[in-house]
Parts: sequence; C-alpha cells; structure tokens
Amino acid sequence: MLEDKNTQRTSLESLGEFALIKHLTQHFELIHDSSLKGIGDDAAVLDFKGLKTVISTDLLVEGVHFDLSYVPLKHLGYKSVIVNLSDIYAMNAKATQITVSVAVSNRFGLEALEEFYAGVAMACKLYEVDLVGGDTTSSTKGMLISVTAIGVAEEKDIIYRKGAKPNDLLVVSGDLGGPYLGLQVLEREKEVFKVNPASQPDLEPYQYIVERQLKPEARKDIIALLEKLDVKPTAMIDISDGLSSEILHLCEQSEVGCNLFEDKIPLDPTVISTAEEFKMDSTMIALSGGEEYELLFTIDQKDFDKIKGNPDLTVIGHMTEKKEGAHLVTRANTKIPIQAQGWNSFSE
Amino acid sequence: MLEDKNTQRTSLESLGEFALIKHLTQHFELIHDSSLKGIGDDAAVLDFKGLKTVISTDLLVEGVHFDLSYVPLKHLGYKSVIVNLSDIYAMNAKATQITVSVAVSNRFGLEALEEFYAGVAMACKLYEVDLVGGDTTSSTKGMLISVTAIGVAEEKDIIYRKGAKPNDLLVVSGDLGGPYLGLQVLEREKEVFKVNPASQPDLEPYQYIVERQLKPEARKDIIALLEKLDVKPTAMIDISDGLSSEILHLCEQSEVGCNLFEDKIPLDPTVISTAEEFKMDSTMIALSGGEEYELLFTIDQKDFDKIKGNPDLTVIGHMTEKKEGAHLVTRANTKIPIQAQGWNSFSE
Repeated sequence: MLEDKNTQRTSLESLGEFALIKHLTQHFELIHDSSLKGIGDDAAVLDFKGLKTVISTDLLVEGVHFDLSYVPLKHLGYKSVIVNLSDIYAMNAKATQITVSVAVSNRFGLEALEEFYAGVAMACKLYEVDLVGGDTTSSTKGMLISVTAIGVAEEKDIIYRKGAKPNDLLVVSGDLGGPYLGLQVLEREKEVFKVNPASQPDLEPYQYIVERQLKPEARKDIIALLEKLDVKPTAMIDISDGLSSEILHLCEQSEVGCNLFEDKIPLDPTVISTAEEFKMDSTMIALSGGEEYELLFTIDQKDFDKIKGNPDLTVIGHMTEKKEGAHLVTRANTKIPIQAQGWNSFSE
Repeated sequence: MLEDKNTQRTSLESLGEFALIKHLTQHFELIHDSSLKGIGDDAAVLDFKGLKTVISTDLLVEGVHFDLSYVPLKHLGYKSVIVNLSDIYAMNAKATQITVSVAVSNRFGLEALEEFYAGVAMACKLYEVDLVGGDTTSSTKGMLISVTAIGVAEEKDIIYRKGAKPNDLLVVSGDLGGPYLGLQVLEREKEVFKVNPASQPDLEPYQYIVERQLKPEARKDIIALLEKLDVKPTAMIDISDGLSSEILHLCEQSEVGCNLFEDKIPLDPTVISTAEEFKMDSTMIALSGGEEYELLFTIDQKDFDKIKGNPDLTVIGHMTEKKEGAHLVTRANTKIPIQAQGWNSFSE
C-alpha cells in the first residue's frame, strides 16, 4: 500500500510556471461535451445546455489535513479529487469537471508533483471528470491543495440538506469509522518508525481501514443505485466531518429531530477489532470519525421496501418532530442527545 | 491608505468551523437569479439557462503573493476577488459568482478574518458577484487564499487567447508598471520601518502606484465599453504576469508574431518618476511588472476608428506573421525579441 517516496528530484524553478502546468496536465483528456475549453486560457469554458450547475470547493493543507510522512502523493492527488466529488454526489448531481490548484515549497521536485497529478488523473478517469483548470504556485512551507468540483443536474433531481420530514428513514451507505482508525494505525506506525527507522510495519491486518483513510472513494455508485431503485431521498449530505455532525446538519436545515439507533450503525469487523485494540469506543468513532465520504440521506417510509436488504445501504434511524431533538438510542435503550463532535481544524 | 492592524482578537477555535463560516458570510446577499443556492449545503447550485459557463481559479499564498506587514487584510480580501474576476472579463464574460476559501494559522483571530471578508464583500458589491461557497480551515503557517470565479457569456461573445490575425492592432487598457513600483515603495518602507519603527512613511507622492498594488481593479468597465463601441476583440488576455509574458501567450496561441512599440506603452507620470528614483528602466517595468489586471487584446484594423482617442485604450503595436516573431521596437528604432520575464513564483 505504502509506496517509496521518489528520490529523484527536478527543481521546479528550472521549468517555470507555464511550462510546469503544461507538463503536468499534458496527458489529461477532456471527455465531456460540456468541456468546451479546458486548461490554457484565462478561464475554462463549459456548456451545461440549460442544466443546473453544482459547484463545491475544498482546501487541503499539509500538517492539518494530511501528513506526507505516510500519505503517498499519488494517493493524496486521488483523495483531493474524491473529497470534492463526494460533495457533488451529495447533491444527487453528476460530477463533470474539476479544477486543481497546488502550492508547494521548494522541497518538492517535479517528480513529486507528477506523482500527485498521476493520482488526480486516476480519479478523473475512474469518475469520468475533466480537469479544466487550476493554478500551480510556490508556498513558503509545505503543500496546499485547492480543488473545485463542478457537476450538473436537472433541477427536479437536486437533493438538498433540507427536505427531510418526520418519520422519514435515515439511511447511510457503506460503513463508518474506518478512515479514522486507519489514521490512528498510520500515526502509531509513524511513532514506531521515529524510534526505530529499520522497523517494517505490518499493516496487513489493517488493510481495509488504512485504505479507507488513504484512498477513499466517492459514492457515485450509490447515486446510480438510487436512480435504478427509483428512490429519491428527501434530504442528503456526505459524511466528511463525522456522522453526528452531519445528522445535525440535516436536522437543522430540515427542521426535524432524529432517533439514531446505536445497534444499527454499520461497522466493519476491522473497525470493531481495531477500536478494541486502541481501547476506543467504536460507536464514538463512527459518530465522530469523519472522512468516510459515505452518503447520509433520508427517504420516505414507503420507499423502504425498495432499499431493504441492499448490502450497501443501512437504515440507522428515523426523523422525528423538531421539538423532540436529535438523539442516539443506545444498545441499553437510553437516549443521549447527539452532539457535533466532528472534526474542527481550528481546535488543534 | 495603510490601516492599523486589528489588535482585538477572538480565537477561531472558540467558534468552530461551521459557526465561523456562518458568521463570516451572514451579510452576503445573493443578487443573481442564477444563484439558486449559495453557502450552506454540500455545493452551490447555479442556473445559467443555456449560457456558457466560464470558470477560473487562483491560489494566493502569504509570503509568496502578499506580505501582511503592509497589506491590510481588507485590501487583501478585495484583491483576491479582483484577480479572479479579471480572468473572467478577459474571456469577455460577465462575472456572476465566486467561491472563497481561506486557511489561516492560529495567529489570526476572528477580527482578522472579518476584515478579510469585508474586503471580499466590498468587491462582491462593486462588481455585482455572489459569494456562493468556500472553505475555511486552519494552516500550520500563514494565510492561504483560493478563489474560484464563475461567469457567463453567449458562445459568440467569448474571446480566447487565440484568434489574433496578422495586421490586427494590439491594444491595452489603462497604464502599466504601477503595481510593481508600488510594491517597491512598500518594500522600501518596510525596511525603513525595521530600522526605525517610529518612522512615519510619507506615501503621498506614491499614492497612485501604491493603490494600484494594494487595491487593483478588474476592467469590467472595459468589457462594457467595448460592447458600447461595438468592438469585438479577436483575442484577449488579462495582464497578471507582465506585458511581455501575456503578449507571448497571445502570439503562441494565435500563431502570430508581433511588433510592440516602446514609445506607445502607456505609463503614468508617477511610474516614470518613481522608476527614475529607483534607477530602474520604466519600459522594463512595464514589460515585466505584472499585477496590473489590465486587458490586453487585439482588434481588426477596421475597428481602429471606434477606439481612437479613447483615454482608456492605447494601441501599442500590431500583430505580424508568425515567422517574424515577437519584437519590441525601441525608441531608438531597434528590434529586440520579446522574452517572458513575467513573475515566476518558483524562481524566488
């Protein structure tokens, strides 16, 4: 999983900014008819032919959002795209274009940026999005990445965070807690490595959660699945900051309450065993971990039969009247108010 | 011109990310019908009703693109928007929306971000663009800004860098060299201040060029003027990296050459006098300075009468066959090849 860092190094100043952008983006092809003009002018030109445009942007900072001592640059390029595409899918839209801007300090060489863009290219190919713009510049310290994702949808198909009604079912895709625990494993290995640089980490038992951390996927497949099942969620959000935080967003914007059932939260066996190993509570991790990029949505009860038994979808609760508040119903059948314990980059 | 830095300081961690974004953007209003949904969901939703969408993005890094020891945060917010709108106008499009992402280290308090967003708001109001999204996060060092600007145009109106023909006239708006010299003045004052913190800078004689550096404007007015004059440029670019660099972009993409006449380059008297004071060549500064955000475009000769005598537009040369290359014709009537000496953030 973990790759060797490149040792070869071509200095960026020897290329200059324009040549650098050209070099890094030369193999990107535009596949969408809507991409009239990509990189190479003052702006990209897109044609959505009357469809609604959906746009989202994220900023990733080295030392805050990622640690290059265990994140391979190719994975980072891939993940930078994924986290933005996830926002587009969370609107029930089709992702079509991205722009990627990168600032790097002079400790990075051309080969490092090539690795990063190889990851961007992999995500573009797999998710069928066009790279249409960006900026490449230097930083005084570390690496900074800004991605803007663009998508399209018909107005009738767009799903907002508001729209959930009391008695709607609360559904989540995939399973939770993996990326957070994957990060704990990587952090632990980093500490071991500091003490004994000759040590070889055995990440095999943790492969699933480490991969969830390093190479997350956006749930484009769930959008397609819901369409196939003829289910239109009433409200939807993606899980980037932790389940509890995202549930509260849905409740606030839809003006409803919620009962979330602890025993329904989908957890992978690796999450349960690793949480035990770290002496952490797996429910707490599922509630507050984040970075899953799973979709969290509400559906009308009449749609339950359509999703029942689908291995990718789990009903974890239901919405209530606003005055009842948002609660976790524990295995012991006690009700605890849900609190936003999502990730706050300013609190560290 | 230079404002006192805020001394009051409310820590960002006391607010949390969501409350922070809400707080900073609460006074922004959406004015465009095309802004269906702004901040507050996974993505903004826009409706361009069949018009082409134009999109551009820039990354600004403290210590590389700006120095907070003399750039007031309000001006920085304003300028961050302007540099992106300029790219939209350079496509002959109408700027309609922006997203603004900011990362700051813990040395910044809430009041600092409020100042920054006040500048963003000022630019949004004056240029009639809606803030529809963004990201606010922490950095390990300094301040980073990423802005994406979105605009619309009918396909027939969009002007690319390619399209210039031999014998077309080369036209520039405004005057050149001011922002670069304004920066030199500010850098000099910073050095003086380091030696004697009690010194009060007298920036009065340099007001025009310092303002050009700190509070640039994008030439929305020129786009309107050209429409009014019924002139459609054959190719267009904005000047962010220096006249010579932008001319070469036009030549390369249009596959033409160019003769640029030194004695035609528009210079403000302050630029000439300050260049003399700094013992610098004003032509060199106009060629390589950058950050003017003026528009550089080519027009068919038949349109010359329509722009003749306009104080905002100066014909500075004409395009030639590609094989003739791009040259500066000096006051002494010698021809010198134009070289890209624009700003390269990696060379420092």
